[in-house]
Amino acid sequence: MKSVEADGEGGGIRAVSRAWRVLRAFSPEHMSLSVAELVRETGLPRTTVLRLVDTLAAEGLLETAADGHVRVGTSLIGFAAFAEAAWTVPEASLARMRELAAETGETVSLYVRKGLSRVVIGQAPSPNTLRHVVQPGDELPLSAGAAAHVLLSLEPADGRDELITQVARDDAAPLRAGVETATEAGWSVSHGQREPGNSGLAVPIPFAPEAGRVPARPVVLALGGPTVRFTEDRIPGFVTAVRRCAEDLARTGVPPALY
Amino acid sequence: MKSVEADGEGGGIRAVSRAWRVLRAFSPEHMSLSVAELVRETGLPRTTVLRLVDTLAAEGLLETAADGHVRVGTSLIGFAAFAEAAWTVPEASLARMRELAAETGETVSLYVRKGLSRVVIGQAPSPNTLRHVVQPGDELPLSAGAAAHVLLSLEPADGRDELITQVARDDAAPLRAGVETATEAGWSVSHGQREPGNSGLAVPIPFAPEAGRVPARPVVLALGGPTVRFTEDRIPGFVTAVRRCAEDLARTGVPPALY
Repeated sequence: MKSVEADGEGGGIRAVSRAWRVLRAFSPEHMSLSVAELVRETGLPRTTVLRLVDTLAAEGLLETAADGHVRVGTSLIGFAAFAEAAWTVPEASLARMRELAAETGETVSLYVRKGLSRVVIGQAPSPNTLRHVVQPGDELPLSAGAAAHVLLSLEPADGRDELITQVARDDAAPLRAGVETATEAGWSVSHGQREPGNSGLAVPIPFAPEAGRVPARPVVLALGGPTVRFTEDRIPGFVTAVRRCAEDLARTGVPPALY
Repeated sequence: MKSVEADGEGGGIRAVSRAWRVLRAFSPEHMSLSVAELVRETGLPRTTVLRLVDTLAAEGLLETAADGHVRVGTSLIGFAAFAEAAWTVPEASLARMRELAAETGETVSLYVRKGLSRVVIGQAPSPNTLRHVVQPGDELPLSAGAAAHVLLSLEPADGRDELITQVARDDAAPLRAGVETATEAGWSVSHGQREPGNSGLAVPIPFAPEAGRVPARPVVLALGGPTVRFTEDRIPGFVTAVRRCAEDLARTGVPPALY
């Protein structure tokens, strides 16, 4: 007989994934949730929610109060401080990214791959009112955009094509062409692929053992902004500026979690 | 047949507690762990660790890299930002706590009860070199110290005595006496109960619907420092100063997670 807690989707331990679903139901707007609200938010059966809340409360990850509501627990204090430190871009790198944002007028972001997505792990916003807005932690598709092309170009050759097929699903040819261009040129530019009127320009961070510590996976540096400002005449200057910044970041480093 | 993942200690879901044990194995000093290191750190069987890592990686809470090492994943970025915000002491309250630390020369801390412990949820350090040092998230015993006495005095009367017995175990009489004194006086002072040479003085934060939002559980404001500075002649001044601060905090508030 199979365990009721095991073998959820993907062969993982279902109870663990469900516990994470319960924790994510909390947000700045929902600091306190009733069990009924948790049932609604997670889509899990009430008995499952009750058992998960009990377990998470025993670990101090949640708190159940006399009013019957559930809140986030004190065990998160130390863990949040650790997780935040783990994902903090070193100050010297962030300062350099702010410099690039000022120089180009566009939003500067760091991306890593996460499965079939790419995740923003650091950012310096454009000084312009009309700007590309992302937050660290945001997940974007790996199927489109300059940063996606460069990230895929940095994958080991033996698994890259299969990954592209998985990411693109129906029509992998345009993505494959974009990745090839990025591989050859060492940078990529895209216009309106992910969102109309939005452009991106990305380069790899050229980590090298002689320049500093090398993280366990590739990191991409990207500029994002409105297509009207990513004109043909500006692209060469953008490429030069972004590459210079990427060379500096290879020395000043990326968040500690990546090493 | 019982589920292998369910019914761990305390009737909780064992896989969830174990997953949390795996996550806590990471620290600023251990950002990258091999599976063997995770086995050693958690005391869990290797097959269990592998399944937990797979599940946590599928949720983006961990990452497994080509080098076989495990690191914290990008799903923690957004969650850490939320958890940190949830447990941040409002700026006005923190400023008021810093004022009290400057006025008294002692470390100012906020405590809540967590099961049979008390947890520091906020702090303003003493300006002195010899000082009481705690970090938000630190857990201290509920069996000793002024803050413990006041926290227990604020528990609902019907469960309080049982809680005291559970906390004190062998000899509940001294703790019960301390809690009674705190209940009667509305404050408590202790010398060297938890640690020789260390003193504490604590008062409840007098939340009231007319003064501001009332959190779901009691919060205590405490001064901590060396016993040599907690002399008889200084105590009345300390009590007045700490009470005034507590009255202000009832208005300026505590971390959002508590409401």
